[in-house]
Amino acid sequence: MNEVIDLLLRHRSIRKFTSEPVTAEQRTAILRAAQAASTSSNMQAYSVIHVTNQALKNQLAELAGGQAYVSECPLFLVWCADLHRFAAAAGRHTDAPITGNAEHFIIATVDAALAAQNAAVAAESLGLGAVYIGGLRNKPAEVSELLGLPQLVYPVFGMCIGMPDQEPLLRPRLPLEAVYHENRYTDNPVAIDVYDETIRDYMDRRTGGKADTTWSKEMAAKTQRPRKHMKAFLQGQGFEIE
Amino acid sequence: MNEVIDLLLRHRSIRKFTSEPVTAEQRTAILRAAQAASTSSNMQAYSVIHVTNQALKNQLAELAGGQAYVSECPLFLVWCADLHRFAAAAGRHTDAPITGNAEHFIIATVDAALAAQNAAVAAESLGLGAVYIGGLRNKPAEVSELLGLPQLVYPVFGMCIGMPDQEPLLRPRLPLEAVYHENRYTDNPVAIDVYDETIRDYMDRRTGGKADTTWSKEMAAKTQRPRKHMKAFLQGQGFEIE
Repeated sequence: MNEVIDLLLRHRSIRKFTSEPVTAEQRTAILRAAQAASTSSNMQAYSVIHVTNQALKNQLAELAGGQAYVSECPLFLVWCADLHRFAAAAGRHTDAPITGNAEHFIIATVDAALAAQNAAVAAESLGLGAVYIGGLRNKPAEVSELLGLPQLVYPVFGMCIGMPDQEPLLRPRLPLEAVYHENRYTDNPVAIDVYDETIRDYMDRRTGGKADTTWSKEMAAKTQRPRKHMKAFLQGQGFEIE
Repeated sequence: MNEVIDLLLRHRSIRKFTSEPVTAEQRTAILRAAQAASTSSNMQAYSVIHVTNQALKNQLAELAGGQAYVSECPLFLVWCADLHRFAAAAGRHTDAPITGNAEHFIIATVDAALAAQNAAVAAESLGLGAVYIGGLRNKPAEVSELLGLPQLVYPVFGMCIGMPDQEPLLRPRLPLEAVYHENRYTDNPVAIDVYDETIRDYMDRRTGGKADTTWSKEMAAKTQRPRKHMKAFLQGQGFEIE
């Protein structure tokens, strides 16, 4: 429909990068674009930590479950939900305690996500590739310790950015009818049937015939690793979620 | 730096729209762009509800705190975090109960946000304007009831889209140094001082001299309406956040 939409539709996660650095100008453009995203009541309740220290990148790669691209990528960012700065600012004028209640938790998590997505789009517009690293939530307490995150801040995900050194297949999404509803939420099991076959074909092509799976099988497998530690971790960071 | 980044940097929330409709082609392009966003392990744990029924739009506008643009905008979308479809798919292959634990809650909330931000960018690339409606979380139970949301689904925010009928000022963001950290989280109170003055100037210009406020004052005011009902509501929707 236009070049921006074409860019969005071409999105693929990139996990292998050339050694070409991301320039300071590119990084600044990416971060300015992130800042321009919508934010709830202008709270800007997120922070981004640029990890330049190679030893630190190696540790984070390990904590994320041994994802080598975290240590190898030219630009590694950690996107954090951040109510600490909000609390510091508000604290100049009120004694009301700032709690990490569920609403504040949503605001900060969404603010971090909107900013990060703008960053990803900006990076891709510069010919760079990116991948989100949810694996930082495998060991969120250790990650927070390493990055010196204060109370009311947590790492939502990392992001690797760099010049792509791979051409992964475009991963097909659910049929639009599966995620789209008019006026009222409606189950669409047939769309899941259709998508199961789509993913079977895609995985077959991606693995050269080695994988025999479907979307629903993949989702069932995912229930086996639920990161049950997150609530206790978040409470330790001051998010009462209440 | 390029046209995409320029587009992102020009973002302003639009709350007044002409009567020009958003075409079906535009809507499909916006939704396809949303679907192309990154998603945790391909879970696609979000749904989008297109509200076409005018009476329903009016009710939602009221529940959002009387935001008339919700009922007036040509295209109103409700972005939901959705683990219901994930549970239905996984349930084809496992008896493991799908809980809305904190990790799943984060995944679904982030997936909804990434998709929505791509939608907003796509809309703006088409010359349309958009605004996020966090106000749906004022009355989340009533909103969920009206939209027939099942367990494990909650409305994260709404989004108004349409042809802009206003030219709001660009709202300045925090200095980059306030949100950006290298290797380790660092407080930057001076950046808040600077931004307080920036927002004082901005509000003065926006209100024609009627507002005398700063960012930190605005944030202190925000602590007075914390939507404390969210945890109980989320528990009612099956999110144990544990």
